[in-house]
Amino acid sequence: MVVPLETWLPWLDVAGLSVFAASGALAAVRKRLDFVGACFFALITATGGGTLRDLLIGAPVFWMHDATPVILCIAVAVAAWAIPLRWWPERALEWFDAVGLAAYAVYGAGKALHVGIAPIPAAAAGVITACLGGIIRDITAGVPSILMRHELYVTAALCAAACFVALTAFGVAAPWPALLGAALGFALRAASIRWGLSLPPHRGH
Amino acid sequence: MVVPLETWLPWLDVAGLSVFAASGALAAVRKRLDFVGACFFALITATGGGTLRDLLIGAPVFWMHDATPVILCIAVAVAAWAIPLRWWPERALEWFDAVGLAAYAVYGAGKALHVGIAPIPAAAAGVITACLGGIIRDITAGVPSILMRHELYVTAALCAAACFVALTAFGVAAPWPALLGAALGFALRAASIRWGLSLPPHRGH
Amino acid sequence: MVVPLETWLPWLDVAGLSVFAASGALAAVRKRLDFVGACFFALITATGGGTLRDLLIGAPVFWMHDATPVILCIAVAVAAWAIPLRWWPERALEWFDAVGLAAYAVYGAGKALHVGIAPIPAAAAGVITACLGGIIRDITAGVPSILMRHELYVTAALCAAACFVALTAFGVAAPWPALLGAALGFALRAASIRWGLSLPPHRGH
Repeated sequence: MVVPLETWLPWLDVAGLSVFAASGALAAVRKRLDFVGACFFALITATGGGTLRDLLIGAPVFWMHDATPVILCIAVAVAAWAIPLRWWPERALEWFDAVGLAAYAVYGAGKALHVGIAPIPAAAAGVITACLGGIIRDITAGVPSILMRHELYVTAALCAAACFVALTAFGVAAPWPALLGAALGFALRAASIRWGLSLPPHRGH
Repeated sequence: MVVPLETWLPWLDVAGLSVFAASGALAAVRKRLDFVGACFFALITATGGGTLRDLLIGAPVFWMHDATPVILCIAVAVAAWAIPLRWWPERALEWFDAVGLAAYAVYGAGKALHVGIAPIPAAAAGVITACLGGIIRDITAGVPSILMRHELYVTAALCAAACFVALTAFGVAAPWPALLGAALGFALRAASIRWGLSLPPHRGH
Repeated sequence: MVVPLETWLPWLDVAGLSVFAASGALAAVRKRLDFVGACFFALITATGGGTLRDLLIGAPVFWMHDATPVILCIAVAVAAWAIPLRWWPERALEWFDAVGLAAYAVYGAGKALHVGIAPIPAAAAGVITACLGGIIRDITAGVPSILMRHELYVTAALCAAACFVALTAFGVAAPWPALLGAALGFALRAASIRWGLSLPPHRGH
């Protein structure tokens, strides 16, 4: 069965929004902020990437015309606040971030293609969009940016967006480019979190 | 007497712009930058929040179509540069920031409502807008973000924006929602600066 | 011979894009990131300023409607990755940044004037645009922002943009305002890199 682009992709947006909100709220909880601070971090982490994506492609900013994203971020922050930290899996923030990275890379590229952006800028916009939430969260919280660690992070976003854009360009039917792209991106990031998979660094001389 | 929305609200914008410019210029002076650096910090601190607000709601960026905001920022920077540091009240930067926070939270939410944004996103846009100037100032200056201190900061912006949006939604006549919202936000932030009022942090386990 | 505005200015954009991409890629190489990280840093450093410029003036974001900028950034990153670090001139990152600063200050102000922005906001937009790439690069890489050093940085951008805007306003024929503005900005920045030229800091009391 073929799911058209329009009905499938928005779920990736909701998924990305929820898990980035969770990673933002957890970052605030770890820094022992108050509850409003946790909601604020959930909101800026979750909406940052999508806001940049919409500004880049010239679309109305998605969370301005629908109250759902803001309410969803607050609900996620309530859950992150209420659940004791010891109940969360180890590196929970990183795992939420991994899902959000893969989902936003594909959805960002997909929404860009949808409004007529060419494949290469669309993939680049997907990558920047996917990485922005984590960058905003880390820099605002005053911790070293996740980008600077020797892990697959930008690479995972790039593979997700490039796989999605390439399969779409080659005419693969609707759910597969998004599904395969997001799965590839998440698998690479998961391999990096779990087994330390990374690309070789610059030789440095 | 009832002041319509259009004539009252812009004064909050001028107030926010001036005091955020002063807080940016003072941050530059404390870091012993040169005069042009003080003007630059005044400009990015003062215009940062309003620029994001206008981009979020899809309005033209306010300081692009009027030379007044840029001239006002430079005038404030000249004053901040010329007045000896010992003449400023203790924590002057924080007090300017407090006025700007309250003014921008209300004006940001008000301008969003004015262009047809729904109440909940409008309040969230007001909060992010109000906090952005201080975040830009602190991160660019390389000092820990004001958000991360255990004070009422986001909470004060939230109460200002939520009070304004709620009173407006319930049909309260024009100057009162803005006045009461800004007064509430400033009072909360002032209580935090003066007496250390804060919300309880996360219990941390 | 008089070169009209439209044919001359875009070369400054290409120049700014290329050299900011090189400075971003070099920053990533110095931090020993992997190759994809170097491409990402090249892209956000090179496109950051122009993206803000286009958002401020309400123009479509330049690299969304043309694949060339993204491809150019990747090509520059490949070169920065492949060439051994010891072959680069000392302070290569700073020199690339200096060319980009001067080119973007003039091109940012010029594009703003071209879409009808008044001279003072246009010059301010040129300055912020020129400085943004370096700020994004430094803050994301976790190094102190180039703005905070006691060097001519914002001042060089300001002189470039102000010279260009003033000469254009006084009706000087097309290539000269851009050429003289960019040359002045680069000369000031070069004097600061080479001989430590700077403005006096605030006296601090």
